[in-house]
Amino acid sequence: MIGKDLKNILEELKSGKIGVERAIELILDPGYKDINFARVDVDRSRRRDFPEVIFCEGKSDDQVVKIFEELGKYSLNLLGTRANHSTFEMVKKIFPQARYNHVGRTITIEREKPSEKGSILIISAGTSDLPVLEECFETARIMGNKVSRLVDVGVAGIHRILYNVDLLDSAKVIIVIAGMDGALPSVVAGLVKKPIIAVPTSVGYGANFNGLAPLLTMLNNCSGGIGVVNIDNGFGAAYLASLINKIGEE
Amino acid sequence: MIGKDLKNILEELKSGKIGVERAIELILDPGYKDINFARVDVDRSRRRDFPEVIFCEGKSDDQVVKIFEELGKYSLNLLGTRANHSTFEMVKKIFPQARYNHVGRTITIEREKPSEKGSILIISAGTSDLPVLEECFETARIMGNKVSRLVDVGVAGIHRILYNVDLLDSAKVIIVIAGMDGALPSVVAGLVKKPIIAVPTSVGYGANFNGLAPLLTMLNNCSGGIGVVNIDNGFGAAYLASLINKIGEE
Amino acid sequence: MIGKDLKNILEELKSGKIGVERAIELILDPGYKDINFARVDVDRSRRRDFPEVIFCEGKSDDQVVKIFEELGKYSLNLLGTRANHSTFEMVKKIFPQARYNHVGRTITIEREKPSEKGSILIISAGTSDLPVLEECFETARIMGNKVSRLVDVGVAGIHRILYNVDLLDSAKVIIVIAGMDGALPSVVAGLVKKPIIAVPTSVGYGANFNGLAPLLTMLNNCSGGIGVVNIDNGFGAAYLASLINKIGEE
Amino acid sequence: MIGKDLKNILEELKSGKIGVERAIELILDPGYKDINFARVDVDRSRRRDFPEVIFCEGKSDDQVVKIFEELGKYSLNLLGTRANHSTFEMVKKIFPQARYNHVGRTITIEREKPSEKGSILIISAGTSDLPVLEECFETARIMGNKVSRLVDVGVAGIHRILYNVDLLDSAKVIIVIAGMDGALPSVVAGLVKKPIIAVPTSVGYGANFNGLAPLLTMLNNCSGGIGVVNIDNGFGAAYLASLINKIGEE
Amino acid sequence: MIGKDLKNILEELKSGKIGVERAIELILDPGYKDINFARVDVDRSRRRDFPEVIFCEGKSDDQVVKIFEELGKYSLNLLGTRANHSTFEMVKKIFPQARYNHVGRTITIEREKPSEKGSILIISAGTSDLPVLEECFETARIMGNKVSRLVDVGVAGIHRILYNVDLLDSAKVIIVIAGMDGALPSVVAGLVKKPIIAVPTSVGYGANFNGLAPLLTMLNNCSGGIGVVNIDNGFGAAYLASLINKIGEE
Amino acid sequence: MIGKDLKNILEELKSGKIGVERAIELILDPGYKDINFARVDVDRSRRRDFPEVIFCEGKSDDQVVKIFEELGKYSLNLLGTRANHSTFEMVKKIFPQARYNHVGRTITIEREKPSEKGSILIISAGTSDLPVLEECFETARIMGNKVSRLVDVGVAGIHRILYNVDLLDSAKVIIVIAGMDGALPSVVAGLVKKPIIAVPTSVGYGANFNGLAPLLTMLNNCSGGIGVVNIDNGFGAAYLASLINKIGEE
Amino acid sequence: MIGKDLKNILEELKSGKIGVERAIELILDPGYKDINFARVDVDRSRRRDFPEVIFCEGKSDDQVVKIFEELGKYSLNLLGTRANHSTFEMVKKIFPQARYNHVGRTITIEREKPSEKGSILIISAGTSDLPVLEECFETARIMGNKVSRLVDVGVAGIHRILYNVDLLDSAKVIIVIAGMDGALPSVVAGLVKKPIIAVPTSVGYGANFNGLAPLLTMLNNCSGGIGVVNIDNGFGAAYLASLINKIGEE
Amino acid sequence: MIGKDLKNILEELKSGKIGVERAIELILDPGYKDINFARVDVDRSRRRDFPEVIFCEGKSDDQVVKIFEELGKYSLNLLGTRANHSTFEMVKKIFPQARYNHVGRTITIEREKPSEKGSILIISAGTSDLPVLEECFETARIMGNKVSRLVDVGVAGIHRILYNVDLLDSAKVIIVIAGMDGALPSVVAGLVKKPIIAVPTSVGYGANFNGLAPLLTMLNNCSGGIGVVNIDNGFGAAYLASLINKIGEE
Repeated sequence: MIGKDLKNILEELKSGKIGVERAIELILDPGYKDINFARVDVDRSRRRDFPEVIFCEGKSDDQVVKIFEELGKYSLNLLGTRANHSTFEMVKKIFPQARYNHVGRTITIEREKPSEKGSILIISAGTSDLPVLEECFETARIMGNKVSRLVDVGVAGIHRILYNVDLLDSAKVIIVIAGMDGALPSVVAGLVKKPIIAVPTSVGYGANFNGLAPLLTMLNNCSGGIGVVNIDNGFGAAYLASLINKIGEE
Repeated sequence: MIGKDLKNILEELKSGKIGVERAIELILDPGYKDINFARVDVDRSRRRDFPEVIFCEGKSDDQVVKIFEELGKYSLNLLGTRANHSTFEMVKKIFPQARYNHVGRTITIEREKPSEKGSILIISAGTSDLPVLEECFETARIMGNKVSRLVDVGVAGIHRILYNVDLLDSAKVIIVIAGMDGALPSVVAGLVKKPIIAVPTSVGYGANFNGLAPLLTMLNNCSGGIGVVNIDNGFGAAYLASLINKIGEE
Repeated sequence: MIGKDLKNILEELKSGKIGVERAIELILDPGYKDINFARVDVDRSRRRDFPEVIFCEGKSDDQVVKIFEELGKYSLNLLGTRANHSTFEMVKKIFPQARYNHVGRTITIEREKPSEKGSILIISAGTSDLPVLEECFETARIMGNKVSRLVDVGVAGIHRILYNVDLLDSAKVIIVIAGMDGALPSVVAGLVKKPIIAVPTSVGYGANFNGLAPLLTMLNNCSGGIGVVNIDNGFGAAYLASLINKIGEE
Repeated sequence: MIGKDLKNILEELKSGKIGVERAIELILDPGYKDINFARVDVDRSRRRDFPEVIFCEGKSDDQVVKIFEELGKYSLNLLGTRANHSTFEMVKKIFPQARYNHVGRTITIEREKPSEKGSILIISAGTSDLPVLEECFETARIMGNKVSRLVDVGVAGIHRILYNVDLLDSAKVIIVIAGMDGALPSVVAGLVKKPIIAVPTSVGYGANFNGLAPLLTMLNNCSGGIGVVNIDNGFGAAYLASLINKIGEE
Repeated sequence: MIGKDLKNILEELKSGKIGVERAIELILDPGYKDINFARVDVDRSRRRDFPEVIFCEGKSDDQVVKIFEELGKYSLNLLGTRANHSTFEMVKKIFPQARYNHVGRTITIEREKPSEKGSILIISAGTSDLPVLEECFETARIMGNKVSRLVDVGVAGIHRILYNVDLLDSAKVIIVIAGMDGALPSVVAGLVKKPIIAVPTSVGYGANFNGLAPLLTMLNNCSGGIGVVNIDNGFGAAYLASLINKIGEE
Repeated sequence: MIGKDLKNILEELKSGKIGVERAIELILDPGYKDINFARVDVDRSRRRDFPEVIFCEGKSDDQVVKIFEELGKYSLNLLGTRANHSTFEMVKKIFPQARYNHVGRTITIEREKPSEKGSILIISAGTSDLPVLEECFETARIMGNKVSRLVDVGVAGIHRILYNVDLLDSAKVIIVIAGMDGALPSVVAGLVKKPIIAVPTSVGYGANFNGLAPLLTMLNNCSGGIGVVNIDNGFGAAYLASLINKIGEE
Repeated sequence: MIGKDLKNILEELKSGKIGVERAIELILDPGYKDINFARVDVDRSRRRDFPEVIFCEGKSDDQVVKIFEELGKYSLNLLGTRANHSTFEMVKKIFPQARYNHVGRTITIEREKPSEKGSILIISAGTSDLPVLEECFETARIMGNKVSRLVDVGVAGIHRILYNVDLLDSAKVIIVIAGMDGALPSVVAGLVKKPIIAVPTSVGYGANFNGLAPLLTMLNNCSGGIGVVNIDNGFGAAYLASLINKIGEE
Repeated sequence: MIGKDLKNILEELKSGKIGVERAIELILDPGYKDINFARVDVDRSRRRDFPEVIFCEGKSDDQVVKIFEELGKYSLNLLGTRANHSTFEMVKKIFPQARYNHVGRTITIEREKPSEKGSILIISAGTSDLPVLEECFETARIMGNKVSRLVDVGVAGIHRILYNVDLLDSAKVIIVIAGMDGALPSVVAGLVKKPIIAVPTSVGYGANFNGLAPLLTMLNNCSGGIGVVNIDNGFGAAYLASLINKIGEE
């Protein structure tokens, strides 16, 4: 019933168009399909601007394919993240349009060309951060955003980012990906008045502690204007950026 | 030179209007005032949409007053956070317009009425989260945003948030403040397609570990579309929300 | 002597039926069998409602088989958890009734049909939580409980759980399994007056920290009425649920 | 609508007894009272067997009193936890029946004698755990349970608990409170077939780390049948115990 | 000079038996052999009662063999821990008396029968703790102690340890090895007046955190009389036990 | 019954000297006195060589006094740790022999002169570690050991400890107390063949993390022969040292 | 004997100038004075370039004074850190030259003017870092270095540090003090080829975790050329800087 | 412009030698080459004394080769760390002078013989620390320093380091590498007045926690004069040592 036109249903009931049983059914419509091992959230696209995205890790190839099939009945464009190549190959048999990004480990199915709204800029501090950047890029693109990239501009050579201040200024929202010390978002946030989404990565020596170090750095930034997502979560950053980027576009 | 009109300076140099020394001075203009114990960033308003905000904790009353005085030469409206009442009283002697929020511990100086652009909604899970909510509210307001509040809608009574879905939908950006288990942002994010900023608070029993528990919960949300700021950091959440909220407003 | 009928032994001693040596032997009866590398707790079924369960990880195939053999002299139905398939194959040679659950990695030996008492409902937030759910299911079933499952109802689509409130209400005890942010138990606990057992899983992105995040979330729930077990410990949740579920059944 | 008789409402609408507007109102009834700084969950007693309990820490005396007043319109018996004596004194002015437990820091208002159903046994390892035990006791009692106590039976003198095995066996559910090494629940669980709720406390020397040590001990118990609640959370343990204890009683 | 007879050297110098250069050489004698990649502490046996023990992990097979060869010039009996079987096979070519313990992963070279002084009892909570127990056993034995074992007596079946109190009483020092909740040492220490050395192991489910849980449990024991060694450090426990056990034996 | 002469009781029963009821009573004798808020372990002296020691923190003055009174019926010499001076003053009214150590915060009651067996040496790295050293000293002394002290010999001036090697060699067991980096026990253990008990203290700068740093250092010592007790736990170290020191003395 | 002229002593012995006893005395000279509660390291100045520095925290006023007196017999200039004002007042009675820095909490006694060698630059990110900066400044100055300061140049306004690159280049060694995100050292290290010492401070919001966040940031810097000292340890940074700064000066 | 001769450029502009566009180009010269997946910092050698060093982990062989090629246009000597042998083989095809250190996993390209300035001494506590020592050695050598090594001198045999005090005294800067308890730097720092760089390694048993234990030990050293780098970061230690070692050499 959440997100249904409750008033319409009640008017139809009152007017006799539908009976009480049907009204209950409509009001309680779960908005999902039960495919035994999963409850596919087929209503998500309406609520959240994009269909449910499949987190492939920990699911069997067979399960992933079945969820893609179910979601494919409701949406033309689909996304799976953290996918193995073997999973992709099984998905491709059903969806020949499927494409695999080997670095970002995403499966994308584009049956209509995504829009290219607004402007998201994705920055990475180092070359080793590319897998997170690619997951982020694919997610932002299929969600209908214009996306550009600026790689390897970490603070060890601060002039690399200073030289690109105009590029920063031209984006509506900026995603900054960094491992090691995670200092880049603080610097970027101090330069421009754009919302910044920071993604810590698990790249680094010992006391990086699998991304804990840059995560804490980013949370403790003193510039303000930075929202942090989970370690290595390129997908989450892109999702948030997409919601921000589309403000004023529609 | 960053953020200066470099071309203009060089043209003036070439045309002889200014000499080499003056050109160097202009190009290297630091954009700050050195007041001995601090370098006041008087250029920040241009770069970042609001003047430098004073984090009062760990500064003497005297230091805070002097920074306010310096910033007050460049901006009409000013903000100090984590301020004691004694600090406020000293500030008030210089700036009679100064106002103190006892719950949020902010000092605000409004010498022109802030604009009320867009729409930021601030939600808190419990009554104990109010200090963070108030810091957040004061910050967002003085930065020129329209702000509304929805308090005490934690997930222990899920109907409290479900009943307010329309209110959620009417905001441009939503800030969700929660301590204890920090589960509220995950639920809110699943209901609407708005960017969400999550603020963990240090409210709770033992294994809350001063806000670590809700911080991790929020970073691990599976809804997507959530950016997290530091524990108890109402200021940071408001700053980010303000940057997002003004997209398409100007 | 703990759990022996001390009075009976003493009466028999006093009446001369048994001598002092035999009395000491009976009083000090350890209630276990020493099979060299293990002390099999053959008295556990009486004390704890089900025979000792074999935690197979870290034990050789040979050791597991020998413990099953020893326990099989005292109980018809047996359970091993965290078992490899190779271990199962060796067990099956001795116990042809043995069955292996590939997802939950359990070995179950049913030589009499378990009872189906009461009603335990096991809920999982996502499809990736299935291994824990299956370990939990097998444990609860062989311990003689009626068990049902409700999978993939995480809070990112809150209507999935709301739609099933009646199902929640029909159980005597509810087990809620969740990884990522671990927010599901808090929501469920707010909806019904049933005891809830929460199981955090190690499923998730970086700052999940192998289950630490949902563990803390669950411990910090503000609903009340939730008991938490160890990360990925489907067995422990089922054991506790079984003890609760049988209250008033016998 | 959750927990309302949806069918009844629709029948009344269909029959013309109520109009569409009234039907919407009834279906969307939030089940809470908005008292400005709080949304009092007045429907909780129906859903969760006891009215909302007030966690007083971090709330002003005035706020606590107002929430008690609002809840007092719907329920005769009420509970506040983590309360200061000064708060109690203000509450007492409005509710002369209010009683304060100085050790457990609870405020209880009993306007009808609670029932004494089933049997909950609360055990504490040491004398220093008494504040948690008292919070636990008051909560369990006012929720309508028969409650007994067994204090200072830690494992350093194992005979203290062995001597009381019969007492353990006579309870329906057992709460075990322990700080330091938190070993007591493991031992108790090995002795009886009762559901056990373990409460770690923050009592101890340095590497206790404010209760982290006993928390981990309890989560890692190898006995099975133990559900753990948050550090020092006597309230939460009593709530869960009450839900379990009432199984088969009503 | 530390541990040399300084007075003797000086007397010889004074009397002219040796010159200044030779005196300096003797006084500064490092007590080790430099074999390029290692400084073999050939003086250790005198200082610490047993020759340097080789921690094989992180060393190449070749390095281990060379250190054994060097130490073998000074001591008849030798020990290597954390050794792979391949390393053992290379050692065996040089020292045909070498023996490998597959569970404990130790290499022992016995060229004279070790003494069997005093009495060390090694207890393990579960069968999965055997690798640590075996490392511990081999170390204690080759260091010249009488050693006995008692396995699988964890607190989930407390009668297993109670039944063996006499055995506990007959030892001079007791080593208790436990993973999971690590509760066993607390119980044992409460029963006897023997020094106890506790060894946490990394055996267990999720929140065991690779042995952190039992480590904290053991450090927080409230019985007193327990010294804790590093996680899985069977060697260290045996070394300490040996030093204690030989008190009063020589 | 644990630690009772079971055989004697049974013989007396058989011979008719006592009846079955009395035999049960004797066998089940709990060995403690129930004084309402505590179960005083009056049997501990027999089992553990010294009566129960009162950990005063978290107990009221009144509770401490009552426990002293109960224990004083069974033992002449008594010890309380972590005591406030106010508690001492109340104890002194009942036990005029009571003495308070202001640095170590212990209450000792000596009604017979303790023996001075063996030889325990207590070493501290710095002057700031004195409170732990004093608690340790008082405990070891009243338990009947000969105790000596060597303070402020930390590794920053390594010659301070090297100069005292003979003193180290003359003790039967050595306790080493250190905060900061906690490196002293590793060095001491490398010099002598004595059992060493290491006590980390919470003295230090930021990343000491209240004693975590020296705790980890001590657990990771590579010398071997070191048992670690809890942070700041001078009492526990003395207890263990006393058990070791008395080996071969009685 | 370490750091003594061993050869000279032996020559004197051989030539009969001194006897064996005196030779032993000289060789074993501990280089410290035992003042009962402390062993004052009077040899440190020779070994380590500055006399022992008194860490006043955790020492009584009386103890501090006595150590100053003892050290004052051997060195003209002295330093105490983490001192209270009350301690200073007692020291001043003995040493009228003593001076107290209220922000840095240091006591300095200058009885000869320190040298001003080389050039140490101390940078702080924010005004709240001043206490650490002052401790650092006083330490570096009394150790005989030329010291200058540059405060409040954090990365939120990156132009503040860029504008001062020449100043950075003119120092021999740079100390960078930062709390919050601790990003400043990474940026500074990328700009110049000077050794950098980074000091994390405990200044910041929640997830700063008392300085853990900037500590990790600094350890994970990707610029290279940075050595990190303990949280808030201005003293340690100055000590290291002094040792570096004096290279090539003497 | 940072690090460019701004004055020269402006003079040339004023004199008409170059135009405004060219002046802007020169002033904004980024100092890097954009090779698509990386921004190679070709200006680093000038700023930081050595060209950018390639951290090979997480980069494809192809990417590493391309960065080497780009950097090789500007510098004769190059360094790659954390390299696999397969990467080395591809690099060797382009740079036949490339050399691989199997233990330290470095690729070095020497096209001119490095200088051998000053004196760096690298010490390791154990043989298992060799991989870090070798990375450290190769880095220091190719950066133009004279380097020597002293291995296996851990504190378990303190005489090994004492015997080498003269060697310590002869170095300009000392790097100390240690795992396990990490106590060696504290001892070394107490013996000499040289700057010390401490490198914790991840070598050790359980509670080493992948190098956390020695990291904390080193940060908490009480000797002073120690700068700490990241766990296993031999490269970073050598870089800092090189910057220090060259002071006064040029």
